[in-house]
Amino acid sequence: MGKNVIVAQSGGPSPVINNSLRGIVETCRQMPEKFGKVYAGWHGIEGVLKEELLDLSAQDPEEVALLAHTPAAGSIGTCRYKLKKGQTEDLERVIEVMRAHGIGYFFYNGGNDSMDTANKVAILAGEKGMNLVAAGVPKTIDNDVGDTEFKLIDHTPGYGSVARYWAYAVQNANEENSGSSPSDPVLVMQAMGRKIGYIPAAARLGDPERRMPLQIYMPESGLSLEELADNVNEQLKRDGRCIVVVSEGFEAGDIGRSKDSFGHTQFSASKLTVQQIVVNRLNESGLKARGSARGHVAGTDQRDTAVYASTVDLDEAYKVGQKAVLTAAQDGSGWMSTILRDPGSIYAVRYDKVSLAAVANSERAFPAKWLAKSKTDVTDEFVRYARPLIGEEWPSVPLVGGLQRFARLKPAFAPKKCKPYIPQADRRA
Amino acid sequence: MGKNVIVAQSGGPSPVINNSLRGIVETCRQMPEKFGKVYAGWHGIEGVLKEELLDLSAQDPEEVALLAHTPAAGSIGTCRYKLKKGQTEDLERVIEVMRAHGIGYFFYNGGNDSMDTANKVAILAGEKGMNLVAAGVPKTIDNDVGDTEFKLIDHTPGYGSVARYWAYAVQNANEENSGSSPSDPVLVMQAMGRKIGYIPAAARLGDPERRMPLQIYMPESGLSLEELADNVNEQLKRDGRCIVVVSEGFEAGDIGRSKDSFGHTQFSASKLTVQQIVVNRLNESGLKARGSARGHVAGTDQRDTAVYASTVDLDEAYKVGQKAVLTAAQDGSGWMSTILRDPGSIYAVRYDKVSLAAVANSERAFPAKWLAKSKTDVTDEFVRYARPLIGEEWPSVPLVGGLQRFARLKPAFAPKKCKPYIPQADRRA
Repeated sequence: MGKNVIVAQSGGPSPVINNSLRGIVETCRQMPEKFGKVYAGWHGIEGVLKEELLDLSAQDPEEVALLAHTPAAGSIGTCRYKLKKGQTEDLERVIEVMRAHGIGYFFYNGGNDSMDTANKVAILAGEKGMNLVAAGVPKTIDNDVGDTEFKLIDHTPGYGSVARYWAYAVQNANEENSGSSPSDPVLVMQAMGRKIGYIPAAARLGDPERRMPLQIYMPESGLSLEELADNVNEQLKRDGRCIVVVSEGFEAGDIGRSKDSFGHTQFSASKLTVQQIVVNRLNESGLKARGSARGHVAGTDQRDTAVYASTVDLDEAYKVGQKAVLTAAQDGSGWMSTILRDPGSIYAVRYDKVSLAAVANSERAFPAKWLAKSKTDVTDEFVRYARPLIGEEWPSVPLVGGLQRFARLKPAFAPKKCKPYIPQADRRA
Repeated sequence: MGKNVIVAQSGGPSPVINNSLRGIVETCRQMPEKFGKVYAGWHGIEGVLKEELLDLSAQDPEEVALLAHTPAAGSIGTCRYKLKKGQTEDLERVIEVMRAHGIGYFFYNGGNDSMDTANKVAILAGEKGMNLVAAGVPKTIDNDVGDTEFKLIDHTPGYGSVARYWAYAVQNANEENSGSSPSDPVLVMQAMGRKIGYIPAAARLGDPERRMPLQIYMPESGLSLEELADNVNEQLKRDGRCIVVVSEGFEAGDIGRSKDSFGHTQFSASKLTVQQIVVNRLNESGLKARGSARGHVAGTDQRDTAVYASTVDLDEAYKVGQKAVLTAAQDGSGWMSTILRDPGSIYAVRYDKVSLAAVANSERAFPAKWLAKSKTDVTDEFVRYARPLIGEEWPSVPLVGGLQRFARLKPAFAPKKCKPYIPQADRRA
């Protein structure tokens, strides 16, 4: 019987995050000589700290299989808590809990920060004389893991699905906008992605032949709200309507200081969304005569809509989970499983490993050459990169009684063996 | 060869509106002795006024077939323009255009107001000695056509699909909220439906067994924002998390006058959404210690997401289109096709006709008995009413090249025969 395993997730979820979890659980099950029980840190690393370990080995295999089409992180939870430098007590607590439960393997699913955490845990465990294999599994809808040149990873599981969401959202929005354009000629849709524009960029996948009056405003655009308003009014002259996809990271900022004094001001009751600022600006820019702008902030549905999961993304998410387990078994600690694209025009990937330290120290930007000259579009090269990620088919989300049948894990928690955890805040108080 | 036909749509679209259009077009095609060319008023009655008549008979039958899974009103357009009392010039213009194009049948797809318009057109045509058959086809996502007792119509095509959207949205949101509850314990989702609560009520279909910490605030609830905040905090004590579905028609109104002076105030730059008011109120109600409320306004995706269309709704939308054509052929002018539910626990409907005048003079409310005593839920009787409408399966939205393949009608417009239309506003000026 092998050593026990802890899996934990960090940060925002994706529609395919649970398929990576499934990949880990099912692959560990296939190697009982290497891997013992598989526990999940309930709500990420916080669950490890609190010794809340959900026993995934005790789950019905059918429910584990249903993780494939269960979106978001409801099954084992996630958290925003980060183990920071100097939080040695927390790091030591993690080691204490792991030691108490005979843990030999720690799989951490997340972005660059999580790879850094996994790396730290591995180093500290080594210092403490504990033989722990720490491994990373990449995940983020923002596609911001690794480096700009795709040497560490081509794309992150989760991105293909949010890209598919946006491709279809733009298709649907075009039917809406085209149908109601006499009264509502402008539809503004705000996309996630505060620092990097991969998500709004994916809107172009919904109209690769550029037949729609679609403008995309990424954080990287460098355009002002004034320029946006001018561009939209130009499009209205040409087409009578316009669909605007704007990143939540679009800099609509200095409007608060502009002479018509609106925009980024933080009202006591609420921050305005970028979408509201854009809609307001458009409605005061002479658009009114033609009708009004309508706006919409896509919510967490971007990352938790089961049916928009890409079948390619689902497949890859599973395999990075598998690969992380195989790497941990064969090559030991310190690796993140990764997806690398084969050269050539036929989409093909291989699964490999990169060091956690390399990923932790990397930073990804949206390649400047993929932003179109207009700054309101992306290039065809981006489309060629992203198009294969959305797949060709609808995923087979099972329906029972007319509803989506998601995995339901039973609350089988490992018996506690350690002292109760005292949160950092309480320790200081 | 029969007389020509005009079809027009009014108001907000639905995911199944085009299937009613398909039902009309394909049924007319089957009776060439009765029906000649089928034209669409391009963007509703405005297209009739402007003599912009899209020739649907000239379209590729395959594209007409693809209307089945094409959401919203992009194919022939819709408008918010209403023919009001006293606008005799516009009414007369409609008759003039229809006469010029040999129109014998007018099918109007919309809600109560549209049935009133169709009725008026029929009456005026009669007065002018024109033998016009005017017919109504019901449509609205709000399910507010007809009467409260379901004698005129059981439910409106479009509602089953938005109900399905909300059932699944709540399922997905539950995975999100459950997964991220330590930091974001409250998820507020704003639903459409300004006056009537059928749309937020459908959220209950996502959790008919009441396993989720779900609260629903309909316009009919009569609850205040303070009561909402108290309810949510109670739920947090019990479950550690809460999903709030709130109607855009929820009366969050008198907060603007409350002592903490926020809420409904109309800022110069923007109106706050009900969702923002609720989120702000929750975040200032002591929730902060537990994490924060996250909010989201569901946008036009409620009514334009192809894959959330209910297969039952799709089927019924087609058949009300068919029925309207058959009624017009057999019984002449003045009828709306309707869906009546057979008694008994097996869901079955029949297609019938009701007079346009009866529908035009009717008003529907959400039955008081279907609002739960808590006012934050609906009763099981509502669930039994609405559950069959969402169907059992995913619709077969065709994908080509990874994208949704929507109908693409060619711009085959009827040659103009009348003088140019002068809009009412310009006539007055």
